[in-house]
Amino acid sequence: MSKIRVGIVGASGYAGEELLRLLLQHPAVELTCITSRQYAGQPVGTAFPRYRECPLNFMAPDVASFAELVDLAFLALPHGLAAEFAAPLLAHGVKVVDISADFRLRDTAVYAKYYKSEHPAPELLSKAVYGLPERYGSALRGAELVACAGCYPTSIILPGSALLASGLVETTGVEAISLSGVSGAGRKVDLPYIFPECNESIRPYSVTGHRHLPEIEQELAVAAGVPAITMNFIPHLIPVNRGIHSTILFHGRTGCTTDKALAALHAAYDGKPFVRILAAGELADTKHVTMTNMCEIGCVFDQRTGRLLVSSAIDNLTKGASGQAIQCMNIMCGLDETAGLR
Amino acid sequence: MSKIRVGIVGASGYAGEELLRLLLQHPAVELTCITSRQYAGQPVGTAFPRYRECPLNFMAPDVASFAELVDLAFLALPHGLAAEFAAPLLAHGVKVVDISADFRLRDTAVYAKYYKSEHPAPELLSKAVYGLPERYGSALRGAELVACAGCYPTSIILPGSALLASGLVETTGVEAISLSGVSGAGRKVDLPYIFPECNESIRPYSVTGHRHLPEIEQELAVAAGVPAITMNFIPHLIPVNRGIHSTILFHGRTGCTTDKALAALHAAYDGKPFVRILAAGELADTKHVTMTNMCEIGCVFDQRTGRLLVSSAIDNLTKGASGQAIQCMNIMCGLDETAGLR
Amino acid sequence: MSKIRVGIVGASGYAGEELLRLLLQHPAVELTCITSRQYAGQPVGTAFPRYRECPLNFMAPDVASFAELVDLAFLALPHGLAAEFAAPLLAHGVKVVDISADFRLRDTAVYAKYYKSEHPAPELLSKAVYGLPERYGSALRGAELVACAGCYPTSIILPGSALLASGLVETTGVEAISLSGVSGAGRKVDLPYIFPECNESIRPYSVTGHRHLPEIEQELAVAAGVPAITMNFIPHLIPVNRGIHSTILFHGRTGCTTDKALAALHAAYDGKPFVRILAAGELADTKHVTMTNMCEIGCVFDQRTGRLLVSSAIDNLTKGASGQAIQCMNIMCGLDETAGLR
Amino acid sequence: MSKIRVGIVGASGYAGEELLRLLLQHPAVELTCITSRQYAGQPVGTAFPRYRECPLNFMAPDVASFAELVDLAFLALPHGLAAEFAAPLLAHGVKVVDISADFRLRDTAVYAKYYKSEHPAPELLSKAVYGLPERYGSALRGAELVACAGCYPTSIILPGSALLASGLVETTGVEAISLSGVSGAGRKVDLPYIFPECNESIRPYSVTGHRHLPEIEQELAVAAGVPAITMNFIPHLIPVNRGIHSTILFHGRTGCTTDKALAALHAAYDGKPFVRILAAGELADTKHVTMTNMCEIGCVFDQRTGRLLVSSAIDNLTKGASGQAIQCMNIMCGLDETAGLR
Repeated sequence: MSKIRVGIVGASGYAGEELLRLLLQHPAVELTCITSRQYAGQPVGTAFPRYRECPLNFMAPDVASFAELVDLAFLALPHGLAAEFAAPLLAHGVKVVDISADFRLRDTAVYAKYYKSEHPAPELLSKAVYGLPERYGSALRGAELVACAGCYPTSIILPGSALLASGLVETTGVEAISLSGVSGAGRKVDLPYIFPECNESIRPYSVTGHRHLPEIEQELAVAAGVPAITMNFIPHLIPVNRGIHSTILFHGRTGCTTDKALAALHAAYDGKPFVRILAAGELADTKHVTMTNMCEIGCVFDQRTGRLLVSSAIDNLTKGASGQAIQCMNIMCGLDETAGLR
Repeated sequence: MSKIRVGIVGASGYAGEELLRLLLQHPAVELTCITSRQYAGQPVGTAFPRYRECPLNFMAPDVASFAELVDLAFLALPHGLAAEFAAPLLAHGVKVVDISADFRLRDTAVYAKYYKSEHPAPELLSKAVYGLPERYGSALRGAELVACAGCYPTSIILPGSALLASGLVETTGVEAISLSGVSGAGRKVDLPYIFPECNESIRPYSVTGHRHLPEIEQELAVAAGVPAITMNFIPHLIPVNRGIHSTILFHGRTGCTTDKALAALHAAYDGKPFVRILAAGELADTKHVTMTNMCEIGCVFDQRTGRLLVSSAIDNLTKGASGQAIQCMNIMCGLDETAGLR
Repeated sequence: MSKIRVGIVGASGYAGEELLRLLLQHPAVELTCITSRQYAGQPVGTAFPRYRECPLNFMAPDVASFAELVDLAFLALPHGLAAEFAAPLLAHGVKVVDISADFRLRDTAVYAKYYKSEHPAPELLSKAVYGLPERYGSALRGAELVACAGCYPTSIILPGSALLASGLVETTGVEAISLSGVSGAGRKVDLPYIFPECNESIRPYSVTGHRHLPEIEQELAVAAGVPAITMNFIPHLIPVNRGIHSTILFHGRTGCTTDKALAALHAAYDGKPFVRILAAGELADTKHVTMTNMCEIGCVFDQRTGRLLVSSAIDNLTKGASGQAIQCMNIMCGLDETAGLR
Repeated sequence: MSKIRVGIVGASGYAGEELLRLLLQHPAVELTCITSRQYAGQPVGTAFPRYRECPLNFMAPDVASFAELVDLAFLALPHGLAAEFAAPLLAHGVKVVDISADFRLRDTAVYAKYYKSEHPAPELLSKAVYGLPERYGSALRGAELVACAGCYPTSIILPGSALLASGLVETTGVEAISLSGVSGAGRKVDLPYIFPECNESIRPYSVTGHRHLPEIEQELAVAAGVPAITMNFIPHLIPVNRGIHSTILFHGRTGCTTDKALAALHAAYDGKPFVRILAAGELADTKHVTMTNMCEIGCVFDQRTGRLLVSSAIDNLTKGASGQAIQCMNIMCGLDETAGLR
């Protein structure tokens, strides 16, 4: 079988680097081009010295020439910009896996509120499939435009949607408290992210109105079968390179127990290669999933408070971004879901 | 004025080291003896090379000889053992500041449940004052036995008690999610605490039934003026040396706003030297308080969810243990509350 | 082609975990058994939660039953113990790749001096090939017993042997200063290795008489074609999980320049898949090689001092232990040298 | 006694923050003003949230108004700029302690070579005393302009000058290999210093021609009583916030032993409050000196190689910058050398 030709638009950040790591060893893919305004004309190794042996050079992001070289494009661009590339690429017959947030929200008013600008390509939203394969696997088959789930959302929606769908927990009073490594802020050169400002520091940020909040609420509502879920999402910055841990609290409905919750998670995810349900009493640890595409989930029902406490961990760059993007691509293109991801 | 002679029982752990750091520069105190079974007969520098110039030697923990050398004793011992030392020291007329948990809980049944053993000295409980100076300042004056507030509890009770007492928030549905540096586990030689198991790891633990939970519930109930508060307390281990950050969620009552919550915090703590109330929109960061006795508190009311989100940070070894112990001592002995702590 | 059946003796440490990571995805290998006294009877996931999906159980280390299951054994045991397993395994016709130090030193007197005990199996030394494929590639083909090069030695011998062999540098006055991550100390539960004792700490150790010193001296002497090299090797412990950086200083002979030194490195290693020679002016960085089997080498000749300064970096667990062991296995068994290591 | 009025010019970096920490608790000093172009008009807490309670505001750096407010100025400015401030401050009768490199080198040609520009105020060089109190204590008494020793130089010159002066070691073949925490790069917002690029990374830099090299060579030559010393200085960046460790190698002269070297260090520094000579066999560890003004020194003579191996550690921001500056100020102003530094 001939290999699928893929390219990365906006490849000079950490999600781009992780795509490189995974695509360079993917058995069914040929990585034909990568773009970067900043590094155009320079070899991959200039931006990522770890890949000096890779013969690719960055090219300037020109849609027409890019489209000739690829069957599928990963967009690792800032939101807003991603949508600008998606439309012409699709018009050239190129499949698009967008790692940005541009096609995640179904409601353009919500997009406008959280991203402070009009949606750049609302006509494409109906084509976009939400790129969380464990929830949207069948829709991904044959999709042309995929909006990869965000990093925090993945860690919350995977356990949350299964539990809400099971009916074991209430749809109100949900709280998600997430802890992320610094690569989650991107390869951003800004004072709060220099080493001495992050190391030996623990801090929350954007505790109301984080851009991932409406994405989480949207998908949990879908899973729960309710018009809307309104919840808190409280992210924190933690001095590790990679990893997100989320603690999610639900009100258990009558009859909720740890065993039933675990059974609901097993029912939803047994057979899914990238979800690990822990045994009763076990909690997630980011170090068990970093550099993998796995989401690890544990939970315990606290009878004293009636709260179901859920613990989940992913690698923000793998299952939270680039690994997930490749998992989506695998399904879109009829490959084994796990190709290149073990 | 002659100096107060103080000693530390069980000085070879991190709380002991922090006591050393602070007491060696305290203007009104003479540190006359420190005990350690493991290091008995050896100089301080053997356990803590940072203090090689300190001429003290560890002595074996013998109450009678110890009591002759001190006016006040800090107990930096495991729970259970602390109570065994407290009784004879008090009988010798030595004031006791206990950093362990032995005298924090008023209800011996709760102690027995969480600490898995009968309380070792129930007859002393009525003498013990809870060592959180911002809440129990007047009771501390002249106290003979002080049970220093725990590290996690301090970070939660300081903001929580003021907000509950203000009536702005409900006493039900409280959630506390805390993140602690590894020194919080003590100087414990165990596989989960070696560097490669902690570094690049984010993980919750003891999410139901942590020993600090009943202490938090007890003190929040006192502040709220209700018989009991039942809540979740969810601690996580974070790869920093020092620092605790707690995110606490309350249901706001009608009329609750960010400004009112901040006003309640100001009303409770303005003039208190070791509480910093942040401006609206600001959140706590452990790196602003490490190596200090400060508790930094911010909050924001989320109108979408009706939740008041509180963010607080302390140094677990200073305001969470040894600094607080010294603050208590200062008040017990009629010194300036801040002596040796700036 | 049928797969090679391999096993790991003493698999519960970090080198064992890294072997697992690499062998589970190796295309030509079947991992049939792993042993651990401590974890015998338990699944892999008990020791390494990251591998919970792996169906293997640890077995007790019984040579006879182990030998029936494997064609080749990796020994990830403490020195001394490794030799005890090697002899009977070889007698059963099992090839052995030893990650310990037991068969690295050719001179049993040197072994006795540095390891404080008689060599446990001197009769096997003549069979043992030193497991540094870039230097001993042809001898490894068909070898039955391989003594994998140590972690520090690999980072020093790779650049050092090429430069000494080139004649550009003196064989006297060599200095090697190495910096290692904490996983280099093994999964050792001891006070100096708990997180708060390592984090925010930089310290040298064993600056005279480290056990890797005679191994480095032996191999550099071989490369230089001299009876002996006597040098300093000064290791430091650094708060990272993985990675070794070595700075090596040589006296340049007349005519030595940066360009000539780089040319000598290129001449030695061009075509070698796991050695990266940096451009003039570039220096090695551990973060470019962690989780890979690559050794990255840069150098610069300082005309002011006549010193050639060499900078090299490896991942101590991959090229410094388990990756190298697999590279050796690949060559021993006639596989592509890079199988399972890209 | 009235307090000395001091100010900090260029106070918004890490050296400025450390000066704040120490000066705010100094018993004989009143900190009257701090300047910053970037933060002019804003309170200290804007740049350093840790000091929100400090009532000072940054002012724009205007020499005339600044000079009226202070008796002594600390310059925490980039090189070049510092000299521009020094001259008019001295003309206004303000004593100057310069933390930059502008007045450290006696030879303007060397300055021009390493700093790539003409010396900005050569006429002041004869007034400047090198601010390393353990070596220049008597010259500091009454000095008006002090050029504080650099961070790396302090860690190397303290042990090195004593050993060279003792005659136990050769003046040729000296090598210094230093490891620094990231705060040593300043509060610099640049890609190589963001958290994910530093964490889990070990790397050398500027291994020939670092700007601290001529300063080290100059002072070691003075101590050795020779016209010049030519040596290597090889700095590395290490993922800790604070701390420098230097390993220094000397050729021992005939008769050199560990005991004699330690005796020479004791002879030089016994009675000096901020130098700690370790026992035979002990090596320095940065974590024993961080947040203090101490320099910890150990050494061992390696009979095999004839090399004296020296290990020293300081806090780069305290003894390596701001603590040292205050120690100099104390001496200049006739205060106890240790005032405010215990």
